[in-house]
Amino acid sequence: MCEQIQPTQAEIFSFETPLELASGNQLPRYDLIYETYGELNADASNAILVCHALSGDHHVSGVDSDGKPGWWNGYIGPGKAIDTNEFFVVCSNNLGGCRGSTGPTSINPETGKVYGPDFPIMTCRDWVQSQNALREHLGIEQWVALVGGSMGGMQVLQWAIDYPEKLKHAIVIAAAPKLSAQNIAFNEVARRAIMSDPEFHEGRFIEHNTTPKGGLALARMLGHLTYLSDDMMGIKFGRELREGKLQYNFGVEFQVESYLRYQGEKFATKMNFDANTYLLMTKALDYFDPASEFEDDLSKALAQAQAKFLVVSFTSDWRFSPERSHEIVKALLDNDADVSYAEIQSEHGHDAFLLPNAHYEGVFRNYMQRVAQDAQVNGD
Amino acid sequence: MCEQIQPTQAEIFSFETPLELASGNQLPRYDLIYETYGELNADASNAILVCHALSGDHHVSGVDSDGKPGWWNGYIGPGKAIDTNEFFVVCSNNLGGCRGSTGPTSINPETGKVYGPDFPIMTCRDWVQSQNALREHLGIEQWVALVGGSMGGMQVLQWAIDYPEKLKHAIVIAAAPKLSAQNIAFNEVARRAIMSDPEFHEGRFIEHNTTPKGGLALARMLGHLTYLSDDMMGIKFGRELREGKLQYNFGVEFQVESYLRYQGEKFATKMNFDANTYLLMTKALDYFDPASEFEDDLSKALAQAQAKFLVVSFTSDWRFSPERSHEIVKALLDNDADVSYAEIQSEHGHDAFLLPNAHYEGVFRNYMQRVAQDAQVNGD
Repeated sequence: MCEQIQPTQAEIFSFETPLELASGNQLPRYDLIYETYGELNADASNAILVCHALSGDHHVSGVDSDGKPGWWNGYIGPGKAIDTNEFFVVCSNNLGGCRGSTGPTSINPETGKVYGPDFPIMTCRDWVQSQNALREHLGIEQWVALVGGSMGGMQVLQWAIDYPEKLKHAIVIAAAPKLSAQNIAFNEVARRAIMSDPEFHEGRFIEHNTTPKGGLALARMLGHLTYLSDDMMGIKFGRELREGKLQYNFGVEFQVESYLRYQGEKFATKMNFDANTYLLMTKALDYFDPASEFEDDLSKALAQAQAKFLVVSFTSDWRFSPERSHEIVKALLDNDADVSYAEIQSEHGHDAFLLPNAHYEGVFRNYMQRVAQDAQVNGD
Repeated sequence: MCEQIQPTQAEIFSFETPLELASGNQLPRYDLIYETYGELNADASNAILVCHALSGDHHVSGVDSDGKPGWWNGYIGPGKAIDTNEFFVVCSNNLGGCRGSTGPTSINPETGKVYGPDFPIMTCRDWVQSQNALREHLGIEQWVALVGGSMGGMQVLQWAIDYPEKLKHAIVIAAAPKLSAQNIAFNEVARRAIMSDPEFHEGRFIEHNTTPKGGLALARMLGHLTYLSDDMMGIKFGRELREGKLQYNFGVEFQVESYLRYQGEKFATKMNFDANTYLLMTKALDYFDPASEFEDDLSKALAQAQAKFLVVSFTSDWRFSPERSHEIVKALLDNDADVSYAEIQSEHGHDAFLLPNAHYEGVFRNYMQRVAQDAQVNGD
């Protein structure tokens, strides 16, 4: 029952066969970095794959050697909603990422130089394909569950469509079946911010020994704005002034300005997130639209899905609002799928999917008991 | 009844007495550029002042010598909701603007150089004070109505508080009694975009013979995002692709990207909006909070108002939502003020206050008949 205190360790698997991408391009070889938690049972029936969101990575649970907790550590671990005493949890960094999987900061074997802007555009489908190769490598015939929030939830949907027999449960949290025009517009402003930074050098900033910190910080500030709810920003910051009174200049005056600027700078400097990765991830989000190959009919797209679904949304999430989850639920019900849906009361906006919330945790735990039964049936 | 086809002509009035500003600074002298429409009646009882929003100017009605229609031409003119056959309408460019009133592009008399970033920070109170001087200059004892949308609506509120006996009617459209933390955060991201443009030169871009076009375009793109509703963007652009299919690159792919980029570039180049003005206007918005001087109690702030009020909001406006107008209405009702309120059904978001809408026009016209009666009573 006591939590493991050993630091998590990442593993890298190298795939030396080319990956055919949705764009028509090819990735000649690639590495996937991943972490695992818990033990794979004898017949490999208790494996869960967790898919990360835009700025996430493979370190989802526990504490790494730098003392950094995983991004979903509140919900995944021994005794937690996804109980690693029971499940074997896998999380990999997406291709195109900057945390160890092959991406823009990797060496292009064809040129011997860093990929930078030459790294091919990725899609959810490409990610799912690479994760499926990881599944085979790990000797897992079928995931007992796929779990993801936001962009991760989109990957879960893509998995359910592309490899219907490879997952038993699909847990789709704070996601949408495709981006709205407004979502795309926010991404485009963020991309413009990065690409118009003079330090961007058309994506070849590493070769120029620099990074487009200003543009990346701006993009992140804007991202944060869409992750938080208006109400929560009001509760958290209100109109509180840093110095207690108006300064009548263009310095940081309101607490909310200070917070956003800090978040932007942390992301661009301390976290050293790669700008090309940010661009790639937003583009994959824009492109995600599984219905587009099925006459723009999401019900048809999900007709081949075999998994049981849990869909979760949060009331104050205006990035991917509950209405967007309703679209997914409706399309699943059109197919008489086994679907549970929970709309969680929260003031935390899109960020809610990462934060403590008793109702959310209860829903998650309860559903995972169902998943555990399905794992045990196989495990017996 | 036939519409005037002569181009509108702007006038400039120069005030050679210093203006004491809320910041404690002083503007040694200033010009206000303004346009007027219709005729002032014998006892000057039919005068209406219109206050513009962030990027607006004094050209509110008719068509100027460049053929450009005024920004509220749909609602102000002969036979229109604000009927210039009946009313004498005045609109001035705010101080700190870049369309002819003294602002950052003007010459600082103390240095003989362009003000640029040395132009003092403006507040709604300062604007109202300067507009009150214009009122005196025009020989108008009392405006029969003050009218404004968005930032213009905030100025109307400030007028009602600062010069209660100088207006009979206050028409406050798509406004808020103060910005929320989220509103401030959007402004801050826009300011960062401008100030981190290398062509900004700490605001001295005119001296460097350049303009921070990229940053200004980004700020405007972001502004547009908050003016439009998610629904309207969906209806207008959806996920439509410019080239009909995905390009798998970082060019302009979706129609919504194309639209936003066009709007941003138009604002920064063709319209040649001054970046320092943009910064000043957003700051004045952030600072607007009349309740702050009344123990954060809007009811107390509005206790001294004597005007009759019309407050209008639009259902899909998420920049200044109907709830923000409710705050104003509630504070007025706390004071037993004469207040009418209309919540207009619209998909157009914040922009709705500028666009054709039968219900909105009906409300506006009806209310203006009340205003006309009050003008006539005096006029008789």
